[in-house]
Amino acid sequence: MLKPNTNYQNLKDSYLFDTILQKSKDYLKNNPNAHLLRLGVGDVTLPLPEVVIEALHNAVDDQSKKETFHGYMYECGDYALREKIALHYAERGIKIAPDEVFISTGACDELADIIDLFDISNSALVMEPAYPSYVETNVIAGRRIIRMNSSEENLFMPTPEKNTKADIIYICSPNNPTGVVFDFENLKKWVDFANQNGSIIIFDAAYEVFIDSPHLPRSIFEIEGAKTCAIEICSLSKTAGFTGTRLGYTVVPKNIIREKMSINEMWTRNRLSKTNGVSYILQKGAMAVFTRKGQEQIKANLQVYKENAKVLTNALDKTNTWYTGGKNSPYLWLRCPDNMNSWEFFDYLLNKAQIVGTPGAGFGKCGEKYFRLSSFGDPHDTVEAAKRLIKIL
Amino acid sequence: MLKPNTNYQNLKDSYLFDTILQKSKDYLKNNPNAHLLRLGVGDVTLPLPEVVIEALHNAVDDQSKKETFHGYMYECGDYALREKIALHYAERGIKIAPDEVFISTGACDELADIIDLFDISNSALVMEPAYPSYVETNVIAGRRIIRMNSSEENLFMPTPEKNTKADIIYICSPNNPTGVVFDFENLKKWVDFANQNGSIIIFDAAYEVFIDSPHLPRSIFEIEGAKTCAIEICSLSKTAGFTGTRLGYTVVPKNIIREKMSINEMWTRNRLSKTNGVSYILQKGAMAVFTRKGQEQIKANLQVYKENAKVLTNALDKTNTWYTGGKNSPYLWLRCPDNMNSWEFFDYLLNKAQIVGTPGAGFGKCGEKYFRLSSFGDPHDTVEAAKRLIKIL
Repeated sequence: MLKPNTNYQNLKDSYLFDTILQKSKDYLKNNPNAHLLRLGVGDVTLPLPEVVIEALHNAVDDQSKKETFHGYMYECGDYALREKIALHYAERGIKIAPDEVFISTGACDELADIIDLFDISNSALVMEPAYPSYVETNVIAGRRIIRMNSSEENLFMPTPEKNTKADIIYICSPNNPTGVVFDFENLKKWVDFANQNGSIIIFDAAYEVFIDSPHLPRSIFEIEGAKTCAIEICSLSKTAGFTGTRLGYTVVPKNIIREKMSINEMWTRNRLSKTNGVSYILQKGAMAVFTRKGQEQIKANLQVYKENAKVLTNALDKTNTWYTGGKNSPYLWLRCPDNMNSWEFFDYLLNKAQIVGTPGAGFGKCGEKYFRLSSFGDPHDTVEAAKRLIKIL
Repeated sequence: MLKPNTNYQNLKDSYLFDTILQKSKDYLKNNPNAHLLRLGVGDVTLPLPEVVIEALHNAVDDQSKKETFHGYMYECGDYALREKIALHYAERGIKIAPDEVFISTGACDELADIIDLFDISNSALVMEPAYPSYVETNVIAGRRIIRMNSSEENLFMPTPEKNTKADIIYICSPNNPTGVVFDFENLKKWVDFANQNGSIIIFDAAYEVFIDSPHLPRSIFEIEGAKTCAIEICSLSKTAGFTGTRLGYTVVPKNIIREKMSINEMWTRNRLSKTNGVSYILQKGAMAVFTRKGQEQIKANLQVYKENAKVLTNALDKTNTWYTGGKNSPYLWLRCPDNMNSWEFFDYLLNKAQIVGTPGAGFGKCGEKYFRLSSFGDPHDTVEAAKRLIKIL
């Protein structure tokens, strides 16, 4: 008799965004003329940059003619794209070899796949509040999860403590949901910890492109020692509007060795066994992102989201609301007013101001008194939301 | 200290297609004017059907405008596409609900991901010769692998034996590499076995579209009882030329229950945690495959490959070569002449006839005296290859 993977029974229901959707629908049913200001889900709203569209069209045309048709792609990613991404790092002074770069169908998929490199006996440290995938993928695998709570005391930027022990360490910076960006000093503490303990850091850099300050690391490889202990997972979802188009990349340095096994070689081998590569069309689209024109065009789109963030931080500043993020980050994480818990505040915002946000409780217990606002919404709606926030906060 | 997944050390080097490529290159170096007839890799060579190209272009255009832009897709697949695929089954008399259909980035990726539903203690039965992924993904997971050898005696169509025991059972029909298609009677034996023993069959139907005979099952769900024990993994790679474009689908019936856990619900939950869905653009392209026009156009392409197969079977028939496949299947599996082993025959074919094929040894030990030819090559090259085969066999 086949035994199912009973670890699934240890997963909590993932009803966060479903519940938000249902509550929004119910509200519109009772208030059919209302216009909801959606600052909830972290999805982008602007179209793909022109150069990407052009590249995608050209790639589709390639697939229409025998002479230019592409079949199976190399499992680890097209070499030209891997090279382009390595150059993109080089421009920021980070040396990465093309075969340390792996093309993926997106950061979420990659976060799920990559832990296959590690033994089941390893523990996984998750700093909460956190993107649910870190916990869920390890619950499914049956790994022990160490939850490290962060709070206002450490400005939601926890560092290793005396009794901290962990084999796999998740760091998301800029953070989803708190918007906090690790500074050099605190990120170095984690890199040193990992090297001292033989741990491996999974560095989720999905929002790195929002960092404007030169005093904050955009890549963990800006930290000395990271190349022997860190895997960096990147995505074009927020960088170039690829949430629905799908493409990401991952850097696995060759110098990460555990028990004489090269993690880079293992991941290469994994890809050869477990995938037939990423779509030719999407890889061509991604190539365009890393051209000069591509970089200019994504900056124009990002500017819209950054303006949204500014509008929202201004509102929170005016109302003396305690919050993190909003600078160098698309997310704002605010303390709910009047000691409300996050679902209470959700209802309050929806009913009083027709604003839809995300309750902090959805990201872990220590998020219960907090609330996430996203700057990916429509600019007009965001301005209106800011006005209403000032009124009711 | 993090412990890497040491199961990787139990993987064999995957040098099959690398070695073929290297040998071909060496030959061309020594014979710079030679034209190689490539009947090796199972990759398609014809461009995507017109309706698919049109749909892909339209989808790219959608991503270029704010009004039609699509962000995150539903993790299990776009409902419209799932419905279309369910209808496609219904046309053949098979009742599948849309939420039993899951859209994937391809059969290879899905084969790797889906075994996450099962406990590590389960055994996996692989009928060799076999597509290497079945063994490799389970080696990485640390599962016990039961190799069931097939041979000329059972016409490379093994059935459960008295002492057969297995929790997960892989069946590939039409088979890669042997080209053998399971008939109703023998497939029923496996379905009955699985239901009696609580096993689950992973049915790899990547080549189903090559089955023309009404007397052979194209889907395992044509077999009574399959809906309580079988998962069907399908792909547009060979069906519609998607090897480099990437899209597949998987049917997980709601009636598969093990230890009171619904495998369909588990897979839904898995997708919610482990992916952000398949590209909007690619799902739109796939939609076009399931239109009337799409079906007509893929048939025209498939006809080319089927003609190739016919040309090759004629040659093998003329030379009285023992083989399987080539009918209702894109692959031919022949016994090497003069008791040669498969790599010897590879060199012989390359040097005497400039034909590149695939040595059977690459698919398991019991393939050592056999050789795979593919019908996905260029039609002119295939005709020329057939002529030369007749001369030298």
